Amino acid sequence: MTLDAFRNDIGSIAVEDNPKLVQKKSRDFYWYSPVLKRQLDHVTADLIVSPKSEGEVVEVLAAAHRHGIAITPRGAGTGNYGQAMPLAGGVVLNLAEMNRIIETSPVHVKAETGAILEKIDQQTRAAHGSEIRFFPSTYRTATVGGFVAGGSGGVGSIRWGGLRALGNILGLTVVTCEAVPRVLKIEGADILKVAHAYGTNGIITDVTLPLTAAYDWIDGLVGFPDVMAATRFAEALARQDGILTKEIAVVAAPVAHDYFPHYRRFFERETSLVVVIAAPHAMDALALLAAHHRGDLVYRSDTVPPEEKRQFPPVYELCWNHTTMRGLKVDPSITYLQTQYPDFEHVRRIHEMLGDEMPLHLEMIRFDGRIVFSGLPIVRFTSEERLEEIIAIHENNGCLVFNPHRYTLEEGGMKQTDAGQLAFKGEADPKGLLNPGKMVAWENPDYDFNQKRSWVFAGLQSMDAA
Amino acid sequence: MTLDAFRNDIGSIAVEDNPKLVQKKSRDFYWYSPVLKRQLDHVTADLIVSPKSEGEVVEVLAAAHRHGIAITPRGAGTGNYGQAMPLAGGVVLNLAEMNRIIETSPVHVKAETGAILEKIDQQTRAAHGSEIRFFPSTYRTATVGGFVAGGSGGVGSIRWGGLRALGNILGLTVVTCEAVPRVLKIEGADILKVAHAYGTNGIITDVTLPLTAAYDWIDGLVGFPDVMAATRFAEALARQDGILTKEIAVVAAPVAHDYFPHYRRFFERETSLVVVIAAPHAMDALALLAAHHRGDLVYRSDTVPPEEKRQFPPVYELCWNHTTMRGLKVDPSITYLQTQYPDFEHVRRIHEMLGDEMPLHLEMIRFDGRIVFSGLPIVRFTSEERLEEIIAIHENNGCLVFNPHRYTLEEGGMKQTDAGQLAFKGEADPKGLLNPGKMVAWENPDYDFNQKRSWVFAGLQSMDAA
Repeated sequence: MTLDAFRNDIGSIAVEDNPKLVQKKSRDFYWYSPVLKRQLDHVTADLIVSPKSEGEVVEVLAAAHRHGIAITPRGAGTGNYGQAMPLAGGVVLNLAEMNRIIETSPVHVKAETGAILEKIDQQTRAAHGSEIRFFPSTYRTATVGGFVAGGSGGVGSIRWGGLRALGNILGLTVVTCEAVPRVLKIEGADILKVAHAYGTNGIITDVTLPLTAAYDWIDGLVGFPDVMAATRFAEALARQDGILTKEIAVVAAPVAHDYFPHYRRFFERETSLVVVIAAPHAMDALALLAAHHRGDLVYRSDTVPPEEKRQFPPVYELCWNHTTMRGLKVDPSITYLQTQYPDFEHVRRIHEMLGDEMPLHLEMIRFDGRIVFSGLPIVRFTSEERLEEIIAIHENNGCLVFNPHRYTLEEGGMKQTDAGQLAFKGEADPKGLLNPGKMVAWENPDYDFNQKRSWVFAGLQSMDAA
Repeated sequence: MTLDAFRNDIGSIAVEDNPKLVQKKSRDFYWYSPVLKRQLDHVTADLIVSPKSEGEVVEVLAAAHRHGIAITPRGAGTGNYGQAMPLAGGVVLNLAEMNRIIETSPVHVKAETGAILEKIDQQTRAAHGSEIRFFPSTYRTATVGGFVAGGSGGVGSIRWGGLRALGNILGLTVVTCEAVPRVLKIEGADILKVAHAYGTNGIITDVTLPLTAAYDWIDGLVGFPDVMAATRFAEALARQDGILTKEIAVVAAPVAHDYFPHYRRFFERETSLVVVIAAPHAMDALALLAAHHRGDLVYRSDTVPPEEKRQFPPVYELCWNHTTMRGLKVDPSITYLQTQYPDFEHVRRIHEMLGDEMPLHLEMIRFDGRIVFSGLPIVRFTSEERLEEIIAIHENNGCLVFNPHRYTLEEGGMKQTDAGQLAFKGEADPKGLLNPGKMVAWENPDYDFNQKRSWVFAGLQSMDAA
């Protein structure tokens, strides 16, 4: 059996084949989406392989190439779109044990792919007073390699944009899946061919990120009687070039109250919240602006007595995909979307059309030098058809949708082939063994992204018809 | 004589009445403008008074109020619009000797009004690795109080906006001109009533500014064969959220070559330059973007051998008003404008209409959360009428002009009464003794800013008719 031959070839590298444990490590937060839940629920690897060094990754990939074994890399499995789920079975390459921080300076960190983001910050803060520019709300568990391979931005993107912006990743090392795997140092323009490719393009073994100055950030919640007033304030705050913030999010009533039990005492069910993280020396100006917008600064972490601090999760865990996660805990029937609104007027129009069927959750970010409204709205899910209608309402009204109910790179992203990624995959993974099924352009070069039906990887077609 | 009585009252405070020295300290860089040169050339104070402490400022202002003596505050006199010129004679209050740095932390500095910006940075860099957010090109000589009272932004405004943005000034202390002068701590929304009021609103005695992380900034020059390609690159770079820059300016051919002799060896007379200051860890991405735009990175300070460094002035002294100053050294017949273009298309249109009569000089800045083109174009001056036509061409094509050929707050600014400033002046300077002639709304409440002719302070009308 080829899998046995593969196992044999990788010798002393740690392997797990207990089906329960294998299934656990074959999953991420795909179940946020009722569509992906239906499509991917059965997905599982045959084997988990846990290398401890770049040398062991090389060994695994040489053996995979030799025996034609599919390899799906995984960090902490905190993605939401099946990024790290092995659609074709085979091996999940668990990189969590490659977690060494290799080097740091005041302006950069180079870490092994499995290093956890919070741990990186702890070390760079202590050593240099510096921290990474932005992080997902899964900061406390997500790995740096997973973030770069499957994430986009997060807390800090209001200041620095996202991972796709030039300069936000300084370098990567990837190992190719060839007879003799190459270890490639990726820099400059090549970075975009490898980052956010779900590991289809080579296995990332280390990441070099720029650092920025760390502050004693203050968490804050500003309440408003209606969500459009909250949105106005969020935009105004985002446009204040002199007020140093790290996070600005809008969470509409009543879901702020319903989903945030730790903070519920501070506001009414009718309150829409703006969640902020700001530098200490920005708080006076922020409070002034909030008052000007008739907002209520109902909570600020710097006034909480030390003995009460443990009651409150950091507010970044109210934001980004944590909003959805907290919602699912309270009401498992909801789901969400990922949208982008070019301006306030677009937000207002969509909100008028959808109301409480889609309670707003907006993340203010910089995108190509502009302040935009990135949406992660809650959707009170009724059917897949209605979900498609809601997506169509967005697209027909000039708003972007990055569909989180798709597991492929293209359908969840820009809905077109990324020629650079595709070409790089040809070099790094000639047999197409790395995370198969995630890059449509590789699996089916003639696929038309304009068609209505979503693309389905061959191995999953039976499930999709279900 | 009232002036003698005033002198008598201020006792031991340092006073200068040598007419040559008094005239020298009554001037700034007003002569950049042929209009202001004609209008203000005769302006001089009767006396220079140089207090050494807030207590002495209180003493001077009490005596001024008692005897009805006009008081015009002055830092280093690096303004260009007669901000510190005593239109009504009287006293120039030289604040340069109040230059103590009062306190610092990693995120703020509180300094006396006469502290020089570069000296502040030297101290905060050494103590905390922090620096002020932005500074004018007169960094090496300008005082913090003068910058706040008469400036707007500068090197660093690409990241932080300008002084008028909430959060960029944390606090001020001002002394009022009353029988018993008050010492007011100004915070929050009140700051905007006092900052950029040319000292008409109270005498600023100390300033608290936020600090940001200091980097080993690298100077760079990127050459382009035409100015519109340079402008495209400057905009693209400004929109790169992940590339940490402190300065991005465009200087058109042939003035870059003609005005920058120290750097001339690196490029042709036909070259238009983009002047950049960037963090070390941003240089790879910056070079990549420059290459993508077919720009030539002709100079970068980090590759200059130490023994040659002294040959090159810092590139911020090629930018902002230093561009104009270098131009005037080479060709005293030129002058300049201050403009703002909402987008590339507006720059292109104006450039097509004016060509080499107005060689472009653009400063990329953030303004209300947007990247905009702030212009300080060189104007090949022929007549005041033609200068007015060039201004009209801008305004008729949707571009803002902040006229640097006017000495009043309103005419050089938003061309309307600032109600907050006016009301505050009523409280802080009931007799109208502070920098008289600079706030039209005070001198002539019914003045119509829409009329063609510029407003003239009564004491200067004879000169304007000349």
